[in-house]
Amino acid sequence: MSKLTGRDPSLLRRINSTVVLRALRGTTAPAALTLTELVRATELSRPTVEGVVEDLIEAGLVAEAADAAARPGGTARRGRPARSFRFRAEAGQLLGLEIGPHRVAAVLSDLTGRLTGSLTREVDETAEAEARLERIRGTVAELLRRTGTARDALRAVGVGTPGIVEADGTVRLGTALPGWTGLALGERLRRSFRCPVLVENDANAAVLAEHWKGAARGVDDVVMVLAGLSPGAGSLIGGRLHRGFGGAAGEIGALHLLGREVTPERLLSTTDEPLHPLDEAAVARVFAEARVGDGRARRAMDRFLARLVHDVAALVLALDPELLVVGGWASGLDGVLDPLRAELERYCLRPPRVVLSRLGDTAVATGALRVALDHTESELFTVEGAGTAG
Amino acid sequence: MSKLTGRDPSLLRRINSTVVLRALRGTTAPAALTLTELVRATELSRPTVEGVVEDLIEAGLVAEAADAAARPGGTARRGRPARSFRFRAEAGQLLGLEIGPHRVAAVLSDLTGRLTGSLTREVDETAEAEARLERIRGTVAELLRRTGTARDALRAVGVGTPGIVEADGTVRLGTALPGWTGLALGERLRRSFRCPVLVENDANAAVLAEHWKGAARGVDDVVMVLAGLSPGAGSLIGGRLHRGFGGAAGEIGALHLLGREVTPERLLSTTDEPLHPLDEAAVARVFAEARVGDGRARRAMDRFLARLVHDVAALVLALDPELLVVGGWASGLDGVLDPLRAELERYCLRPPRVVLSRLGDTAVATGALRVALDHTESELFTVEGAGTAG
Repeated sequence: MSKLTGRDPSLLRRINSTVVLRALRGTTAPAALTLTELVRATELSRPTVEGVVEDLIEAGLVAEAADAAARPGGTARRGRPARSFRFRAEAGQLLGLEIGPHRVAAVLSDLTGRLTGSLTREVDETAEAEARLERIRGTVAELLRRTGTARDALRAVGVGTPGIVEADGTVRLGTALPGWTGLALGERLRRSFRCPVLVENDANAAVLAEHWKGAARGVDDVVMVLAGLSPGAGSLIGGRLHRGFGGAAGEIGALHLLGREVTPERLLSTTDEPLHPLDEAAVARVFAEARVGDGRARRAMDRFLARLVHDVAALVLALDPELLVVGGWASGLDGVLDPLRAELERYCLRPPRVVLSRLGDTAVATGALRVALDHTESELFTVEGAGTAG
Repeated sequence: MSKLTGRDPSLLRRINSTVVLRALRGTTAPAALTLTELVRATELSRPTVEGVVEDLIEAGLVAEAADAAARPGGTARRGRPARSFRFRAEAGQLLGLEIGPHRVAAVLSDLTGRLTGSLTREVDETAEAEARLERIRGTVAELLRRTGTARDALRAVGVGTPGIVEADGTVRLGTALPGWTGLALGERLRRSFRCPVLVENDANAAVLAEHWKGAARGVDDVVMVLAGLSPGAGSLIGGRLHRGFGGAAGEIGALHLLGREVTPERLLSTTDEPLHPLDEAAVARVFAEARVGDGRARRAMDRFLARLVHDVAALVLALDPELLVVGGWASGLDGVLDPLRAELERYCLRPPRVVLSRLGDTAVATGALRVALDHTESELFTVEGAGTAG
């Protein structure tokens, strides 16, 4: 660090500020830290810590804890108790958005990712891009209004949506939603916010969410399959999202084409006509009929399962994850797990554990929130060249 | 660095030694560095550099350049020319081994990876593990003898072989070679050498080789397919080998099972009987017949291609690499490339570039050598906590 700090006092100030914020991160009112504890935690001098804390209070990121004596482990000393400080998680809000074929959803959190509100709205699967954008804008406006959140309090917005998404948030290719291919989604949404807007593929967002709060907590090599009619997958490798060279990793929707047009909507049909490509209600009916023993529905289900096993096996053989999380449909997937496990045992040299999504239909919006949180954390808690400090 | 160096003088010495070696790495006789140049390159003090250089000369890793005046750019000064020093790439040798179904191969290099010899021997595809091990031992012994290399000069041995390989070099699962599953290959080979022996999956070794010296130079997101009768794949993600959670990433051999037993040996057969699973000569005959227009052979070839496209598409959709390298058969693959490209264009949202292996049947042994070189470089040129020094 010596070279850096000798040359750039403002960088030094930022590093110190980051180190103090990190020490305070996650400290809520009862767990606030005194100056003495901060000096010990940061290895900075007391005057430096005092200066940094004053700056952070001024910036609204740190507050003096209301009742220092109430701290657990805080011994009741005589005289004036030492002042203690906490991170102001309420200093900003983060937004996670899902823009999907059938609905849009928004979740709101504080700067530590603690949920403070959510709202979901249906949208017609045939809606054009403008109508869909209008729907998400309206949903966000209503969520902010209901929770009494000022738009200026937003520090970052994450978005999860189907398709191949460029780094700037443009949808390079998105066949699941009308008018989605080529849409400058990030740019369009940025007009509604004064903070960064980060767009991510929906399956990528979903795997981040399951890793954060769901079925993949503590597991760093994960494939998550969104087993819908327009299937997709997101992968973590060594705890990091694998987007692929062109952002198209896990776009397994085309795999079924290799099987001579045996699309999910055809496989799941109990008539000679395929289902509508996005009619998930029809899918739920087939699943339900299969459960009560209807012969045609069970055969349709078997065909669909063979297809799903094939797609999933391809992903598993390519990536060899520790854990496979299956999600994407609100209902009906519970019957999928056992046959999927049995088939993967047959085909994979080292089959992964197979579990259901724990977050269900909140996975994409939650993952989008995680994207916003990651962005904010990297802003607040890391400084280039001091990434491992604290 | 200050914390480290204040506490551990031997670590400090190692760091300084590493820094000097790095500065000298790749310097061959005409490009040797003077003490003054080393002081400038390392930012160490002159007495420190002098001490380190003396130590490295004693350890045999550095030599005084024979003719300092001959250096390009070395100005002819009056009086005695300044002494200059170079890395002794000849101070040790590295070995890369391939142990495959039909042959074993060994390549030898100096400490910079410059080839100094190679030897290939056929082995029967039905040979048991002991016979195969004996074959590679004999090949190594003959290569060392022919090149006049002392066994003690070996600093590391890399090995590439089919199967899922554990970190300690045990083959967890290897169906391509008789008696391979469960073989403690690393341990068995270590008895023949006094240096580290590192075992890697053959397709993983091959992709490392193509990245180092072949078709994937300068490309960091690569899938390499060994399109043999027992197909496999190796992947680089961000320039690093992706082994998977259990070392099974890219083991796509089972994918054909999903297609109802349509194995390559059945697809490529021009009679009712499948080919022998490892009979690559028969494959070459089918390829040759197809090229001269034989109908049955062409249909067999088409069936095989459809299969290959399927397996490769699965990998590409899962990983989204920048480049796909196709190798694994000595001959016949040139006709595969164009149809493969056309089909990938159809099925992949973002199709990768598709090229043939440049290293051909030397890819696996070359990659094994790269594994040995990586090990040695990390020994010589990196110190924990000083990984970015120099």
